Amino acid sequence: MVIAEIYEQAARRVLERCERLAALSALPDGILRAYLTPEQKQANAQVGQWLTEAGMSTWLDAVGNIWGRYEGKKENAPALILGSHLDTVPYAGRYDGILGVLNAIELVHMLHEQGRHLPFAIEVVGFCDEEGTRFGSTLIGSKSVAGHWQDDWLALEDDHGITLAKALHNFGLDPNRCATAGRHCDEVIGYWEVHIEQGPVLEAEDLPLGVVTGIAGARRSNIRVSGQAGHSGTTPMHLRKDALAGAADIILAIENTAKKFGGDVVATVGQVFARPGAVNVIAGDVILSLDVRSQNDTVRDQVLLAINDSVEAIVALRGLTFSWAHTHSAPAVLCDGKFQAIFADAIAATTHARLASKFLPSGAGHDAMAMADLCPVAMLFVRSPGGISHHPDEGVIPQDVSLSLSVMMQALESYAATAEFSEFLGH
Amino acid sequence: MVIAEIYEQAARRVLERCERLAALSALPDGILRAYLTPEQKQANAQVGQWLTEAGMSTWLDAVGNIWGRYEGKKENAPALILGSHLDTVPYAGRYDGILGVLNAIELVHMLHEQGRHLPFAIEVVGFCDEEGTRFGSTLIGSKSVAGHWQDDWLALEDDHGITLAKALHNFGLDPNRCATAGRHCDEVIGYWEVHIEQGPVLEAEDLPLGVVTGIAGARRSNIRVSGQAGHSGTTPMHLRKDALAGAADIILAIENTAKKFGGDVVATVGQVFARPGAVNVIAGDVILSLDVRSQNDTVRDQVLLAINDSVEAIVALRGLTFSWAHTHSAPAVLCDGKFQAIFADAIAATTHARLASKFLPSGAGHDAMAMADLCPVAMLFVRSPGGISHHPDEGVIPQDVSLSLSVMMQALESYAATAEFSEFLGH
Repeated sequence: MVIAEIYEQAARRVLERCERLAALSALPDGILRAYLTPEQKQANAQVGQWLTEAGMSTWLDAVGNIWGRYEGKKENAPALILGSHLDTVPYAGRYDGILGVLNAIELVHMLHEQGRHLPFAIEVVGFCDEEGTRFGSTLIGSKSVAGHWQDDWLALEDDHGITLAKALHNFGLDPNRCATAGRHCDEVIGYWEVHIEQGPVLEAEDLPLGVVTGIAGARRSNIRVSGQAGHSGTTPMHLRKDALAGAADIILAIENTAKKFGGDVVATVGQVFARPGAVNVIAGDVILSLDVRSQNDTVRDQVLLAINDSVEAIVALRGLTFSWAHTHSAPAVLCDGKFQAIFADAIAATTHARLASKFLPSGAGHDAMAMADLCPVAMLFVRSPGGISHHPDEGVIPQDVSLSLSVMMQALESYAATAEFSEFLGH
Repeated sequence: MVIAEIYEQAARRVLERCERLAALSALPDGILRAYLTPEQKQANAQVGQWLTEAGMSTWLDAVGNIWGRYEGKKENAPALILGSHLDTVPYAGRYDGILGVLNAIELVHMLHEQGRHLPFAIEVVGFCDEEGTRFGSTLIGSKSVAGHWQDDWLALEDDHGITLAKALHNFGLDPNRCATAGRHCDEVIGYWEVHIEQGPVLEAEDLPLGVVTGIAGARRSNIRVSGQAGHSGTTPMHLRKDALAGAADIILAIENTAKKFGGDVVATVGQVFARPGAVNVIAGDVILSLDVRSQNDTVRDQVLLAINDSVEAIVALRGLTFSWAHTHSAPAVLCDGKFQAIFADAIAATTHARLASKFLPSGAGHDAMAMADLCPVAMLFVRSPGGISHHPDEGVIPQDVSLSLSVMMQALESYAATAEFSEFLGH
């Protein structure tokens, strides 16, 4: 079998396994696999079997992440962790998270079939709670591995009033031992995550893969605009204090500010609520959500200040008032520069330099964000047809999956060969 | 007692009676008096007593309007109808509608005390269902009087599933006789309605009263703007088809179009719904309500066409799509020119020309709209402090009420004296 066929075969198996995991769902008519549910247990069992078949020892950690380990040339060498998450949103696609776990299993499977071991161990992880579907708190799996388990999470409740503590117990885990899921940085040399892009950038540039430069920091706010409610028939245009017209000005100012800053800056108003919200009443109050992201926290905060200046000018001109409520803030995380170079070189080598290496930021959060507190991280994006994600129509192109496997294998080999890495092992 | 004191005393009584009617409510903590309820029965009984005390014969008509008649110099002369409505919205103010009925009773009361009769009869009406609070169909009282009772209204249901037919029966009315509430145009020479402005125009011009030129026609539509939902983090600004940003452009275009047309044109977006409506998802669909009014139906429809042009340009520029759904259309009604002149002259005479006569359109609907199908109509607006209406804070200034009484009495006297009127009686 020529090398290309090996990767095509592996990609077919990845896609078949994505289908098999999709069947492990709490919904009759869609995919839902939430944290600490029977579906997670089934998925862990299935993935555990595949990990074993790929030549790995496997275990479940204290919070419910499934692991496999493939030793390096020496026993107990520090590990490069490969993986992503196995949980889903409701009515999910088949690939978000899952693709990265199955991709990693294939890589180890190939090494195992060839009887090859690298200077470092490889561990494959299927994180248990990236989406936060059940308890509302995201990244519990990877944050715990990075040493950031928090005991106050035990009191989180799902929609049925079941606490996380109770759910851990029902799953067969000991709520008092969750902190032991944390790994020590000496055991880990890095974390690599393959993930679908969940956006339209690679498709727009006709590229199968992208090297992630970092994960954008996000700030979320609610902006409340207040004017004066009034009868839509009896209040002349010049006597209005229309909160919704003011909010419209603000929505456009937010869009323009993000475009003006350019780069990777995005700013989104996704929610708008007008009160009293009647066809014949001028809106007296409007609440807008605002989500601003950039890989550069300083830029992101400058964008927020610029938006604030615009809002102040708009409300002053219209005789309105406004207030902000900041609801969420997460700092940006940069991907490791050395790893980015390895991925980019691997794309060039694998495609005989046919493909440019596209460097792009991740606007969405990923387990790599949490893992960055433990070790250097890297991510490889696989093109998302239509930019669609968190939807049954989420897809991948089989050739892209095949290419991602060969690129990751090339990256593993390059990394194994680096002088820097040999030095590291010499510690 | 000097004349001014007579009107001040009458105004005090009007305001006291407004308080007494406010107590006849279905709500413990606010005013609600809906059609065919025990509260309407109580209000009709109370108003009936005041009509009788003012020297009138009284009756309830076939749909539940309460009437009083004060004969003219000759028995069975055609009548000038004065009045407004006694029903309310939930958590209403004390004056919307009620003020016009009580003002009319005072005018007749004064004539009666002086033993004066005019060349025409005066009838006072308290309409039963202007607001449409209970059955959703407005102006049932005045439309029925104008001869437009519709049998299909009998099937309308309230929130408890009680049909209008059943409610009429429970109230003691015969659902089969509703059409007999219609009056013949030979019996009626006009309809005059005093009403609070429910808007800010008179207050802004520091005027107590205004002569209504007409009641604006309204068209209501829903505009649906469709783009493409997407992740707020992963979709760069230049690849977005943000339906809410497009809707913001449209809201501002609607505002600008109304301002550009000027005059009495008003256009309002009071409702906005963004789907899916999540903080981290670009809106894929937005629905906006649109309410456009003008006293000139042609102008109103030109405004709608201009708005449609703007919407087409905006969605084309942004790669969005849109659709319209027209939900409501009511033509404009003009107030009678002769009556307007009589009211304006009465304001000038009563105030010794201190006050300019402000002519203004009514953006809100009133019973006069329905009555215009039966006879010439006229309306006098009384200033609304803060422009507030349909709210417990709805108010009037006592001196304005006093002035409205003297102006209306002057108008009655002028009308009685017109040659034209004498001619009319000679028919």
